[in-house]
Amino acid sequence: MRALVYNKVLRYEAEYPTPEVPNGDVLVRVMKAGVCNTDLELVKGYLGFSGVLGHEFVGVAEGGDHDGQRVAGEINLACGECPTCLAGMPTQCPNRTTLGIDRHDGAFADYLTLPVENLHPLPDSVSDDAATFVEPLAAALQTLHITHISPHQRVVLIGTGKLGLLTSQVVALTGCDLTAISRHDRQTDLLRGWGIDTARPGEVETRNADVVVDCTGNEQGFAEALKLVKPRGVIHLKSTYNGLPKADLTRAVVDEVQIHTSRCGPFDAAIRLLAKDAVDVESLIDARYPLEESKEAMAKASERGVLKVLLEIG
Amino acid sequence: MRALVYNKVLRYEAEYPTPEVPNGDVLVRVMKAGVCNTDLELVKGYLGFSGVLGHEFVGVAEGGDHDGQRVAGEINLACGECPTCLAGMPTQCPNRTTLGIDRHDGAFADYLTLPVENLHPLPDSVSDDAATFVEPLAAALQTLHITHISPHQRVVLIGTGKLGLLTSQVVALTGCDLTAISRHDRQTDLLRGWGIDTARPGEVETRNADVVVDCTGNEQGFAEALKLVKPRGVIHLKSTYNGLPKADLTRAVVDEVQIHTSRCGPFDAAIRLLAKDAVDVESLIDARYPLEESKEAMAKASERGVLKVLLEIG
Repeated sequence: MRALVYNKVLRYEAEYPTPEVPNGDVLVRVMKAGVCNTDLELVKGYLGFSGVLGHEFVGVAEGGDHDGQRVAGEINLACGECPTCLAGMPTQCPNRTTLGIDRHDGAFADYLTLPVENLHPLPDSVSDDAATFVEPLAAALQTLHITHISPHQRVVLIGTGKLGLLTSQVVALTGCDLTAISRHDRQTDLLRGWGIDTARPGEVETRNADVVVDCTGNEQGFAEALKLVKPRGVIHLKSTYNGLPKADLTRAVVDEVQIHTSRCGPFDAAIRLLAKDAVDVESLIDARYPLEESKEAMAKASERGVLKVLLEIG
Repeated sequence: MRALVYNKVLRYEAEYPTPEVPNGDVLVRVMKAGVCNTDLELVKGYLGFSGVLGHEFVGVAEGGDHDGQRVAGEINLACGECPTCLAGMPTQCPNRTTLGIDRHDGAFADYLTLPVENLHPLPDSVSDDAATFVEPLAAALQTLHITHISPHQRVVLIGTGKLGLLTSQVVALTGCDLTAISRHDRQTDLLRGWGIDTARPGEVETRNADVVVDCTGNEQGFAEALKLVKPRGVIHLKSTYNGLPKADLTRAVVDEVQIHTSRCGPFDAAIRLLAKDAVDVESLIDARYPLEESKEAMAKASERGVLKVLLEIG
């Protein structure tokens, strides 16, 4: 099969072996896949990954309970037997591998495999394009699973990249008083189009937000969040960080600021919201490439200002 | 009056001016005061403080509603008028000064002043010695105000200095499965005497604690807390940090670890627990000095392994 493979170098391969299908797993023929910032980090050495990249996809199950159906797929392959799994937190399983991220070949290929319980069939009302956003939208929704955001709260979101734009829309659903800080006209226009207030950096009152959602993934973002949040407020970290950031934990303690974090989220809720058109994902698509040009797709996705890049696979 | 004054150098002064008493404030004659780690930090330049040190004390009110009564005193002098105060969080008032810490002369002197609403009269069942622990015990209790610790949870506490020993006792009150990690025989003996399980560093299972209470105040402590906490667990930061620590926020996000913080706490609860003898503070007292020897008291308090040092003032 065709695949985009990273093993110290990034290489498109026309004849990569089709994955074997372990017991309980299902072969999925990939239709489309999205390039995520995590993919860009992995090819810089993050997690020491080698194999087929990609974890945002829509495909067709070949076999299993959903044979012939369009599916999205949860990316964590949990053991199902450890205390963490038995406590209902398979996404935190210490024995897990992760599709296209950690020791399990991913979605930038003609085929992938996932356990049958990871697959979510998609209603017709969710387009193929929209379905590639189920995984990141689920991650955005996890913000609300961890942090209770109420309609009378002032919320500021910083870091309006792909995940930040999805998270903005999700946070706006709560009815809270949300302001997204955006440096770029493109993002500002998108946010305003969704009815979300925006501000430029420096325009928002400091120490005034009940909740700051930090989608920046850099230490400057965390420092900015500490300036914006009010005493006893919450900073929600929605993205991972490059390296080991310095963080003013003393300021957090003195102001009794609580720091929430979240990662992977509920696929069923993401599919439900996409089916209802409650979240706009199509406007984020900036480019499409065939699988043969997946290296070019990765390069495009790493360009400044480019939002979602899709691979059209099959 | 006599006072221990810090102004770039630490100096005992026999004839420091007795404080003027603003409208609404009360003059308090100090009986005893405790030396806190914050005092040791202030004389290294923390917060750029200058003035009379000291914020843990018992005294007698001279005037006001509690005239002639023994009192403990809350250390934050809030404005009472800002949105934070009106929201019921005077300890987070952005306009506050703080007794012996930030622009308000403290308790290592014959007299101090505080607003009448900051004073808490003490029942006879709370000894003068015990009363000097009301402030740090209240801070320890704030842990439970911010973080719900339930009897079925595994909790690990690291950093068994003065505040850590108080916090250990407070956390143990919840009935949780508490282990305090202690390097020193003195602390280990105290903890075991209170019925608290102890372990040496490295003896506790990693990724297994529902809650880790970090009383270390250093970045190694935070890194250790991240190792000990389980996915979706809570790290509670109970102390401030020297400098700007590096913190593995990515690990926190990936494991969805929530980071709680707390600072000053409820005086009424601290007094109630001391009155019931529910917390042992007297065992922490290692030395006593007259006010004239308060510089020596500070030096003693900074010796390795020394717990509480009291000043006997009047």
